[in-house]
Amino acid sequence: MHGRLLDAPLRLVPFVKGHGAHNDFIVVPDPEGQLTLTPADITRICDRRTGLGADGLLRAVRTTAVPEAASMAGQAEWFMDYHNADGSRGTMCGNGIRVFARHLVEAGLSPAGVTTIATRSGPRTVRVPAHGDRNSTITVDMGRPHLPGTPDVVVTVDGHRWPAVHVDMGNPHAVAFVDDLTHPGPLCVPPKVAPSHAYPEGVTVEFAVRTGPHHLRLRIHERGVGETQACGTGACAAVAAHRLIHRHSGAQTYTVDVPGGRLRVATLGDESMTLEGPALITARGVIRLDEQS
Amino acid sequence: MHGRLLDAPLRLVPFVKGHGAHNDFIVVPDPEGQLTLTPADITRICDRRTGLGADGLLRAVRTTAVPEAASMAGQAEWFMDYHNADGSRGTMCGNGIRVFARHLVEAGLSPAGVTTIATRSGPRTVRVPAHGDRNSTITVDMGRPHLPGTPDVVVTVDGHRWPAVHVDMGNPHAVAFVDDLTHPGPLCVPPKVAPSHAYPEGVTVEFAVRTGPHHLRLRIHERGVGETQACGTGACAAVAAHRLIHRHSGAQTYTVDVPGGRLRVATLGDESMTLEGPALITARGVIRLDEQS
Repeated sequence: MHGRLLDAPLRLVPFVKGHGAHNDFIVVPDPEGQLTLTPADITRICDRRTGLGADGLLRAVRTTAVPEAASMAGQAEWFMDYHNADGSRGTMCGNGIRVFARHLVEAGLSPAGVTTIATRSGPRTVRVPAHGDRNSTITVDMGRPHLPGTPDVVVTVDGHRWPAVHVDMGNPHAVAFVDDLTHPGPLCVPPKVAPSHAYPEGVTVEFAVRTGPHHLRLRIHERGVGETQACGTGACAAVAAHRLIHRHSGAQTYTVDVPGGRLRVATLGDESMTLEGPALITARGVIRLDEQS
Repeated sequence: MHGRLLDAPLRLVPFVKGHGAHNDFIVVPDPEGQLTLTPADITRICDRRTGLGADGLLRAVRTTAVPEAASMAGQAEWFMDYHNADGSRGTMCGNGIRVFARHLVEAGLSPAGVTTIATRSGPRTVRVPAHGDRNSTITVDMGRPHLPGTPDVVVTVDGHRWPAVHVDMGNPHAVAFVDDLTHPGPLCVPPKVAPSHAYPEGVTVEFAVRTGPHHLRLRIHERGVGETQACGTGACAAVAAHRLIHRHSGAQTYTVDVPGGRLRVATLGDESMTLEGPALITARGVIRLDEQS
């Protein structure tokens, strides 16, 4: 017993794990905002070996319990306090918010149907089908793409160069259309994107193959992460680039296959986009946090 | 409610997650051997995005409940039913068995001190310090290394060649001593090992730097896995190669630093080895398994 007394304090944090098209998240239920999770705690939880492992952490807290979300309390009951796996604060995540919404509905914290979730990018509308099937798709409002137009950007991997389209979905993307997704090969290091001043905060690169007028296939190298299985804003950015090149306009629906699954991107009359895709809860339990693990 | 009735059957599997020097495992408590986990279930659970994620799965079942372990029931109460992340059956794992032992002691299923755990490599002795500190190290009997001696093997990465020592720890290793662990660079593809007929079932490669007569630092490329944070048999194999080159004999203790932490390998008078290192439980809960996630 003496040894236990000498141990570092042990904290137990409840969690739910889930994924959307293999983009995975830890949801930490904290309705009254009583948990303190430091960047080091979040890094630990998201570490795939010493913690549970995830692309990001989503604390689920009532808007009324968080000063930064209080202005959205009239529209949304829940705030998605999104953090990247490195502990930094994120704003919005198209795959993460679907997992977040699935958790709220499955836990009985929010009704199915159309609901609004507060994020650091503002309130976002999410639609969870009412019939309760855990394998149903969930649709989320992704806002409008911004196409700076210039400068022209070029993506380079292993000496091969592709022209790319610069798209801003609230985060920066370079979309390169290629003939074959097996070329480039494995992306062990980030693709080079020029001119570098187009992306002062780094860039997520999509390699896209057009397989039909409304069908794309993607590989993604995510800023600060590496090659990933899915990226919700990346799917939207690729559709925006495709629409620019092929001069599409108005309401259309696109299928976007990413390595982790199938997403659907719809454009509305005002050029805003929705993202539809799977969101599955895979585990729940408690995480142990202490100072030495 | 209708939708729920149409869902695929949902199974809930209890789990404990832990790691030893960042080599991580899912322990599934199944004392009476009542669970059926197919290779597909294990692959799902160990998938780092669609499941919980781990290097391997350790089902904790009483020896009396498993025909293949029944012959060890007189020596060991618990059988470590070890599976690799790809669902295949494994035999023994030096880091896994420490996590397994930590779970047994913390869950009150086994007393601290010296205990014997049944594995597919036979019964193994494990020592868990009695004072109950969850950050204490755990020591496990690893058996004797086998040094086939010939053929000489050569490891090649990006055109650079290193001579290596062939060591069998129950699984095959090639240990290459290098001047600097930053060279080779990132091991995105397996190192080439020649002659290929020396390793008909593949090989785990250790790159080792000797930092003192009893101190090694390692990087590891694990067969079927990729570059890893730790490998218990790899630490023992590197010590065996080091002892061969420097003509050590008899009882000695070595410190082996792997990317995930510090291990200690001791040789006994009969040339058998023990492995000592950390083992931490990081989370517990239930996993959901169904047919469509």
